[in-house]
Amino acid sequence: MAGLKRVLSSEASNFIGEEIKIAGWVRIRRDHGKLIFLDIRDRSGIIQVVVNSKFSEKAYKEALELKPEYAVTIVGRVNKRPENAINKDIVSGTVELEATGIEILARAKTLPFDMGGNELTLELPTLLDHRALTLRHPKIQAIFKVQAVIIDSFREYLKKEGFFEFQAPSIVPAVAEGGADVFQVDYFGHKAYLSQSPQLYKQIVMSAFERVFSVNKIFRAEPSVTTRHLAEVVSLDAEMAFIDSWTDVKDVAEEAVRFILQRVGKECEKELKFYNATLPKMIDKTPTLSLREAQEKIFKHSGRDVRKEKDLNPEDEKEICAIIKEETGSDFVFVYGYPTKNKPFYVYPNPEKPEYNEGMDLLCRGIEWLSGGRRINDYGQLMEHVKEWKMDPKKVSMFLEAFSYGVPPEGGFAFGSERMTMQILELSNIREASMFPRDMERVDERLSKTK
Amino acid sequence: MAGLKRVLSSEASNFIGEEIKIAGWVRIRRDHGKLIFLDIRDRSGIIQVVVNSKFSEKAYKEALELKPEYAVTIVGRVNKRPENAINKDIVSGTVELEATGIEILARAKTLPFDMGGNELTLELPTLLDHRALTLRHPKIQAIFKVQAVIIDSFREYLKKEGFFEFQAPSIVPAVAEGGADVFQVDYFGHKAYLSQSPQLYKQIVMSAFERVFSVNKIFRAEPSVTTRHLAEVVSLDAEMAFIDSWTDVKDVAEEAVRFILQRVGKECEKELKFYNATLPKMIDKTPTLSLREAQEKIFKHSGRDVRKEKDLNPEDEKEICAIIKEETGSDFVFVYGYPTKNKPFYVYPNPEKPEYNEGMDLLCRGIEWLSGGRRINDYGQLMEHVKEWKMDPKKVSMFLEAFSYGVPPEGGFAFGSERMTMQILELSNIREASMFPRDMERVDERLSKTK
Repeated sequence: MAGLKRVLSSEASNFIGEEIKIAGWVRIRRDHGKLIFLDIRDRSGIIQVVVNSKFSEKAYKEALELKPEYAVTIVGRVNKRPENAINKDIVSGTVELEATGIEILARAKTLPFDMGGNELTLELPTLLDHRALTLRHPKIQAIFKVQAVIIDSFREYLKKEGFFEFQAPSIVPAVAEGGADVFQVDYFGHKAYLSQSPQLYKQIVMSAFERVFSVNKIFRAEPSVTTRHLAEVVSLDAEMAFIDSWTDVKDVAEEAVRFILQRVGKECEKELKFYNATLPKMIDKTPTLSLREAQEKIFKHSGRDVRKEKDLNPEDEKEICAIIKEETGSDFVFVYGYPTKNKPFYVYPNPEKPEYNEGMDLLCRGIEWLSGGRRINDYGQLMEHVKEWKMDPKKVSMFLEAFSYGVPPEGGFAFGSERMTMQILELSNIREASMFPRDMERVDERLSKTK
Repeated sequence: MAGLKRVLSSEASNFIGEEIKIAGWVRIRRDHGKLIFLDIRDRSGIIQVVVNSKFSEKAYKEALELKPEYAVTIVGRVNKRPENAINKDIVSGTVELEATGIEILARAKTLPFDMGGNELTLELPTLLDHRALTLRHPKIQAIFKVQAVIIDSFREYLKKEGFFEFQAPSIVPAVAEGGADVFQVDYFGHKAYLSQSPQLYKQIVMSAFERVFSVNKIFRAEPSVTTRHLAEVVSLDAEMAFIDSWTDVKDVAEEAVRFILQRVGKECEKELKFYNATLPKMIDKTPTLSLREAQEKIFKHSGRDVRKEKDLNPEDEKEICAIIKEETGSDFVFVYGYPTKNKPFYVYPNPEKPEYNEGMDLLCRGIEWLSGGRRINDYGQLMEHVKEWKMDPKKVSMFLEAFSYGVPPEGGFAFGSERMTMQILELSNIREASMFPRDMERVDERLSKTK
């Protein structure tokens, strides 16, 4: 068997009538008398193998030993399937492999649950307790394929637009704002922290490279267990200088999301189908409302008066998305112009109505996908805000230094890759969208077991 | 000026005779009576602006206000330079802009040192104390452009070879081996740690996705200050299943490095020139020696007898690289086959000589660039090693679970992006190759100042 070069499942249909070698894991074995059917999984997908004792007694005997998740190589002949036996759900669905020899590369112990179905109906804790195994299930892999495409297409779009990729640090010396939900690190006898956001670093790097992005970890020690928060998240961040208006930032964010959705749609058709997920609709120009306009619309629509609130609550987010969907067909809506005092010190106040800022959120199907906006670029104004927000300027000294040397009008945006994955696939818990989710109850193992 | 669309320095030569608007930072202002020359820096490079009071008195008056690092927009006419005035060192060297209007977007305070030269001759501590400013210098930016190309081409090559990108976690529940140089995190009242390597996670993910790679942070609490170590590093990791031999891993590692060097050579010509750096030479098949063969060569070459040593020391690494360079012209050499007991538990012992393993290092110009090799895939053998290495199986339980379910022969490799950047540009200290280097003396600020 060593002489044959390995062929992937996805390429098998190019070898009809020929002998090939495949390699992969046994997903399913079905016995029908002297006929054994195997589903073999490799990185490209699944291929069906027929082991017929009449065709190869040797392969048949070898197949009798196989169990789920055994790693194998199989040599055989590629046969075209008859029209009525074509399986469109697998990459190699037009062919099957008739085995002449099977080699076991590694045996597996008995699985704790069935992995052979199209669904993997486990409770979340069980799914995560056995993460090393459940990652092998095609429906679970689909989640991370979508996530990889989201991250990769974010990078692709921003590179295309002249953004420079940098690596934001994870260990930071101080917590700029608040600090309740920050992880502390014992750093050579000093206190240091895990970064909650690359915000200030991306602004520093923008002040040198103009247009920058990063794909980086952020850490939040949220002492609550919700379906939408993790302690460790992959954040996709961008920042751009020389803008004319906050809407320049909005436009780049919108086109980045559009590009991501397009690539997910093109490359993850099968994965979306697994979850019966349809991509949200983004129309030509995403509707854009100020907070007050959004609240007014909600009032008119349902009589619910939230017109004095400082932000949209989850119910408001759902309602404004539903209204916009009905009015325009768009699943997306930008909301901007939040009360200045209610947001971080660096968010740019609207010069004509300084009590409102030029921060923005992109909502979709009732939930926030992305946040951003214009930032203060003038050093004097920034220093005033540092004072007003009662911050310690020493804790943001490198950031302030950057702005003391001339920074043009600028802005940026950020979103979490797990959150977007969850929302695209309509998963019920963000933990499903992280390979190794960290929260207050789990770091791989459940913490209750280790304390 | 609002009517004109901004043009980048690199595109200016497409607009000869036309009026354009540029935006950027004042790098240099040189006054010659009624003539002022400006070097303006934007994300694409540098453009020279001529402000002639005869041509535009208004622009001249505005230019008199400019100082280094002011952020500006400038409107003017693009003129072709005479042949003898072409400046090949800047992207817009065939043209200059004759200014008719200058707008200051942001002023800068007086710089603490001159940033206008081609060199930035600062001591490292000063360079880092003013990181927010020094990142604006073209020679400093060159480092991070090379680094971005290294990281991007690593990803490009591995995607091309069917590797799947995943995100390795940073917070880990336990320290598998040793633990002297690990950072501890206060994790909701539990002890957790910062990952020293995604090794075990990439093997877990490989057991599900076959071929995987990650670009991730790793953290080492090395309590010493050397020119080659940082506390936080961007690690480039890959792992692949269904190998026939450890040399399959070596081949992918070699081609990945070759691909990276090719792209750096193509895209970073200017950056390499800044540092007078020449890319190391990789010949068609990189010479490959066992540790004992390498030691024998050293003995024959210089009489230095290190043939009983368990590893190459820095002097050995330099010598074997020099010998191979002389013999073959190659700047690279693979060394494999280290004493099994001297390496981590997961490294695969050579079945014919189990006292040596199938781990490997890639050396270049006297220094290790990359490490990897074949790993143990058999669960029984792995469990024996866990015992022999006196490890607590509970601390690697998820990893062991992965291997209990059938993992084929596999291996992988890893290298640090900062180390490779440093070596390509022949920098003297790895801190230069990290935007925000963390070590025992510094996290942005010097720690001595904050304690």
